[in-house]
Amino acid sequence: MDIVIMAMIASLIALAVAVFLVVQVLKEMPGTTTMQEIAASIQQGAMAYLNRQFKTIAVFAIVIFFILGMFLPKGEFHNSYLIAIGFLVGAVFSALAGYIGMGMSVRANVRTANAAKKSLKDALNIAFKGGAVTGLCVVALALLGVSGFYYLFTRVWNIPIDMAPSLLIGFAFGASLISLFARVGGGIFTKAADVGADLVGKIEKGIPEDDPRNPAVIADNVGDNVGDCAGMGADLFETYAVTLIAAMILAASTLVTQTGAKSIEYPIMLGAIAAIASIIGIFFVRLGKNENIMGAMYKGMMMTGLISAVGFYFATKYILNDMSIYYATLVGLGVTLFINIITEYYTAKEYRPVQKIAEASKTGAGTNIITGLAVGLQSTFMPVVLIVIAIGLAYYFGSTSTLQSGIYGIAIAAVAMLSTTGIVIATDSYGPITDNAGGIAEMAGLPESVRKNTDALDAVGNTTKAVTKGYAIGSAALAALVLFQAYGEELMKNTVGKSFEFSIDNHMVLIGLFLGGMLPFLFSSFCMEAVGKAAHKVVEEVRRQFKEIPGIMEGKNKPQYDTCVDIVTKAALKEMIFPGAIAVIAPIFVGFVLGPEALGGLLAGVIISGLLSAIQMCNGGGAWDNAKKYIEDGNFGGKGGDAHKAAVVGDTVGDPYKDTAGPALNALIKVINTIALIIAPIIAGTSLLS
Amino acid sequence: MDIVIMAMIASLIALAVAVFLVVQVLKEMPGTTTMQEIAASIQQGAMAYLNRQFKTIAVFAIVIFFILGMFLPKGEFHNSYLIAIGFLVGAVFSALAGYIGMGMSVRANVRTANAAKKSLKDALNIAFKGGAVTGLCVVALALLGVSGFYYLFTRVWNIPIDMAPSLLIGFAFGASLISLFARVGGGIFTKAADVGADLVGKIEKGIPEDDPRNPAVIADNVGDNVGDCAGMGADLFETYAVTLIAAMILAASTLVTQTGAKSIEYPIMLGAIAAIASIIGIFFVRLGKNENIMGAMYKGMMMTGLISAVGFYFATKYILNDMSIYYATLVGLGVTLFINIITEYYTAKEYRPVQKIAEASKTGAGTNIITGLAVGLQSTFMPVVLIVIAIGLAYYFGSTSTLQSGIYGIAIAAVAMLSTTGIVIATDSYGPITDNAGGIAEMAGLPESVRKNTDALDAVGNTTKAVTKGYAIGSAALAALVLFQAYGEELMKNTVGKSFEFSIDNHMVLIGLFLGGMLPFLFSSFCMEAVGKAAHKVVEEVRRQFKEIPGIMEGKNKPQYDTCVDIVTKAALKEMIFPGAIAVIAPIFVGFVLGPEALGGLLAGVIISGLLSAIQMCNGGGAWDNAKKYIEDGNFGGKGGDAHKAAVVGDTVGDPYKDTAGPALNALIKVINTIALIIAPIIAGTSLLS
Repeated sequence: MDIVIMAMIASLIALAVAVFLVVQVLKEMPGTTTMQEIAASIQQGAMAYLNRQFKTIAVFAIVIFFILGMFLPKGEFHNSYLIAIGFLVGAVFSALAGYIGMGMSVRANVRTANAAKKSLKDALNIAFKGGAVTGLCVVALALLGVSGFYYLFTRVWNIPIDMAPSLLIGFAFGASLISLFARVGGGIFTKAADVGADLVGKIEKGIPEDDPRNPAVIADNVGDNVGDCAGMGADLFETYAVTLIAAMILAASTLVTQTGAKSIEYPIMLGAIAAIASIIGIFFVRLGKNENIMGAMYKGMMMTGLISAVGFYFATKYILNDMSIYYATLVGLGVTLFINIITEYYTAKEYRPVQKIAEASKTGAGTNIITGLAVGLQSTFMPVVLIVIAIGLAYYFGSTSTLQSGIYGIAIAAVAMLSTTGIVIATDSYGPITDNAGGIAEMAGLPESVRKNTDALDAVGNTTKAVTKGYAIGSAALAALVLFQAYGEELMKNTVGKSFEFSIDNHMVLIGLFLGGMLPFLFSSFCMEAVGKAAHKVVEEVRRQFKEIPGIMEGKNKPQYDTCVDIVTKAALKEMIFPGAIAVIAPIFVGFVLGPEALGGLLAGVIISGLLSAIQMCNGGGAWDNAKKYIEDGNFGGKGGDAHKAAVVGDTVGDPYKDTAGPALNALIKVINTIALIIAPIIAGTSLLS
Repeated sequence: MDIVIMAMIASLIALAVAVFLVVQVLKEMPGTTTMQEIAASIQQGAMAYLNRQFKTIAVFAIVIFFILGMFLPKGEFHNSYLIAIGFLVGAVFSALAGYIGMGMSVRANVRTANAAKKSLKDALNIAFKGGAVTGLCVVALALLGVSGFYYLFTRVWNIPIDMAPSLLIGFAFGASLISLFARVGGGIFTKAADVGADLVGKIEKGIPEDDPRNPAVIADNVGDNVGDCAGMGADLFETYAVTLIAAMILAASTLVTQTGAKSIEYPIMLGAIAAIASIIGIFFVRLGKNENIMGAMYKGMMMTGLISAVGFYFATKYILNDMSIYYATLVGLGVTLFINIITEYYTAKEYRPVQKIAEASKTGAGTNIITGLAVGLQSTFMPVVLIVIAIGLAYYFGSTSTLQSGIYGIAIAAVAMLSTTGIVIATDSYGPITDNAGGIAEMAGLPESVRKNTDALDAVGNTTKAVTKGYAIGSAALAALVLFQAYGEELMKNTVGKSFEFSIDNHMVLIGLFLGGMLPFLFSSFCMEAVGKAAHKVVEEVRRQFKEIPGIMEGKNKPQYDTCVDIVTKAALKEMIFPGAIAVIAPIFVGFVLGPEALGGLLAGVIISGLLSAIQMCNGGGAWDNAKKYIEDGNFGGKGGDAHKAAVVGDTVGDPYKDTAGPALNALIKVINTIALIIAPIIAGTSLLS
């Protein structure tokens, strides 16, 4: 049977399972009227934000659609418009996955809260199924998009197989653009609401987290969904699609004479297998008798990994008949495993790094911050070593295979790593559902026992969120490497008699490296400032409400939740434009003005400094967060003590680090690489300065 | 006349002027017995530290000496031992400059305090002359070392001119090693003492800065000298020597057939001219009627720049007769000018970045830190753009010159930028002298008017210290680029029939890039942790003294200053070993195990991520410091208000950023590059993995 059709069927199966899970979750009871009211507020806020976010992006998207259609080389198959259409579909599919996932998330939250009245097991069941809907939709739509377009190109329109993958880049770019804005906008939204709610609520008024008297409480809960569910979903949708496409482009330009379509379609097959493996893995997530929630998650992930490994074996044997390439897929699966372990070590309460920060809090906020920064910086070591080993091994397996392509080995490792995206997002999207469930339980005044159950679920959610960030960054780095290679190939293809050397001792490459290295610094500084500005607006609004609406503190009058949601929405959308624009304009400027060599340097610079900064920020932020929680568990004076106050400062600093700037860097890295790939044919021959 | 002899004479003149300034400063009155006693404590502490630091380094140095002598290729001129001897002399010269500078600094401080009784003008005069001694010694000894060895090699031992420069690398490595440990050790010392003194003194006991009742007060004052005077001196000694040598190596391996000795000796001539220009510039630093201290400094620097520019013109005409190369020197001088302006913008109280941090302090320590981090990140943009433009221009001028070497253009720009090191260090070393003078005035209970004078001088000292850091980083980046090129040349020279491509799409280069990018993160995290650990020991000792020695707080009993000095000394020396070892071992490991391509990638990765991190840390730290001072000037509630408390946290975080980790990254970048250059001939043919 045709591999590409198999992949499309696998996508449709994943979508069907997602629908099945939606039905299962929706038939659960949504609880009391109060609970439903609160949930409805969160729903409205989240959907309102998403609608406006996509409306804003749509303006960009339409402009870009016409630019792509008009200015890209036309080619014999109307390439430019195929790419432009792919771009639109990529954007729409990514947005669709976001809509479905968020829609589920803001309905699963209240049902999880209600089930938590009954048992931990029931609550976990609903929350995880809710998360799995996002996971499956992301993978299914991404795989369907790639395989569907490829099918159309090659089977229906008879475009030669060595040309078809390049045309898929439009789809990748559409996904990139959504991911960039969803990450930046979502990241600003979630942290501005969080920090704003805390600054007045916790610090000025002394009311607890998720207290219904806080006017920003709904905005805060909306933010969890917008950032962790929609943002991460769009991020991994893009990484998944882009990696697949880059691997196919690479195969198309270097291996097609040796292998025909096989090496191009093999990555699609890996995606199809892992999609099915993810579905099976999802049904393995069940609470055992020991009530170990994280254990239940790991069961599902390990199962997915094992089934994938077995499936990859047969697929490799059947398609390429080369075990060296199979080992490259194992390298990819191995990176997923180890990056999880490393991230957990740096961000979980049980280990030395977090405890070190907690201990440093004894001598005040200053030492807490210094230690947290040091932990974040240090946490780059092991992931980099892991990635370097993975590159080395994958290259080795690729070059000792019959294909004799080290780079293809790296590309396949990246595809294999990303193939498990479905289950990874499921565990990640579970996070905001349980977070919300806790919030709803608190706001609706449910008994302590319910809150205890949701807290237990939420604690694991924090870990899975941190771990997913590590996964997203690691995979983004590998994906970017493949994109970089593809960029080089595209340049070669489009010039006659000119060869491109990205040698570091070429001064244009060096200039690109410096500029590229700097971009993540500049970009993340704007993201962090944006959170500050937006949070400031929330603070002012919350203060205004406390002053102007009498009786909020006594619970006699309800605060106006919607104005806060509205303010954060507007602020986030406004603030996302500038960093977003930097990401889009930088590669175009460098490519056209400084030339293809400088753009190559820029890509490498962005990958390296972006990867390091993202790891530092995500791990540092996660460690700060859990250092605070470690103290709240009763260590170093417990909640309310001096160490706790210092740790709260660290947590505040960590918030925009780990939930805004850090994750947005993934999107930055890839959007720049994707744009480079798109403009490669145009700049291949020419530039203003070189 | 022989250019090399001229350079040696210029060095000797600079040394003579330094001696003249020493005599002038020493004949000033050192004030009352109390003042002299305090100064003597600082002197003893500083010298004790320096002695032990160099004893510790001596162990390393002797081991390295034998390794170099035994394992480097022997060659026809006993190269390995020549390099080893050069290494020792480089280390000794650098240490010597440190000794003389520090010796002057800890004697000029008390005389400055005493002169401040009389007038601002007199105090500035002494303080600046004291700083100038360090500046002149650094430049004179570095230039003397390079030109002296080169003279011996070429004129006395008749080593061919195209081989001689490579042998100078030993001298560069000696300087590098001292700089690494002086930077790391000094950086840890100064901030551990500072933070430790503040945590107990200011925060727990509520006594002011420099209060004689604080047992750590002497250690704090010693730290200023150890970090800003000895540390920065060793840093720029090395950058200066290394850049000169790298430019000569480059010329020797690529231009010698065209130009003979001219292109090799031309950089030496630039150094000689700028040394004389610096001497003249120093005498232009005089307080005008408007009492603008910074203006006086700028007068000296502008004068040096102008005289150098004129001198360079004639030197270029006379030696190379090529105006394109002359323009490259102007690029170097221009970078110095603009990097000063940029650094001042980001770190001075008068501008938006610092005021933004001060404003963010109103909402607490969290927002202060977030804004400070954002400012630091953002402050990388303009320096990178500046460096990129400089690379582009210098390359352009180099390649359009008759020598047709873009790289030589970059090398000459770097040499020109560094040639003004003398006056730059003079303004920098002036900082700790005035800082100490203020401390002595406070401890000796001198009248308010004296303190007012020293405060005015000290405020400018903070700016010059910040600006010098920008200069050191910028020049380190350019220097490293030249070293990188020299590394490539050395590899080529030592292999037959093999060519080296540092192409980013070579996976070994990529692996090197990732590892190199990560090193500055790892290294700075250890530096920051070291400050924390050492400061913790100071805190414990100070608390012990307050508890065990009765009457300290009432001023009835003197605290034991020397135990604090001793503790910080030991802690700093212990903690500097590990980060220092990383810097030395990393390039050796990567070079021998992963091969020359990976090492090339490592170098580029270290340069880029090191430059960015260093700028971020130094500027961010400087901005935090001055945001606190801006509030102390009476803004946002002034001293003691809530905003001030938040700003103190920011300042504490900024301390190890700007004075330990940030500046140490310069040394890291260059020591790794220097080692790569040394091992290049050995690894050129072989490696374990590639």
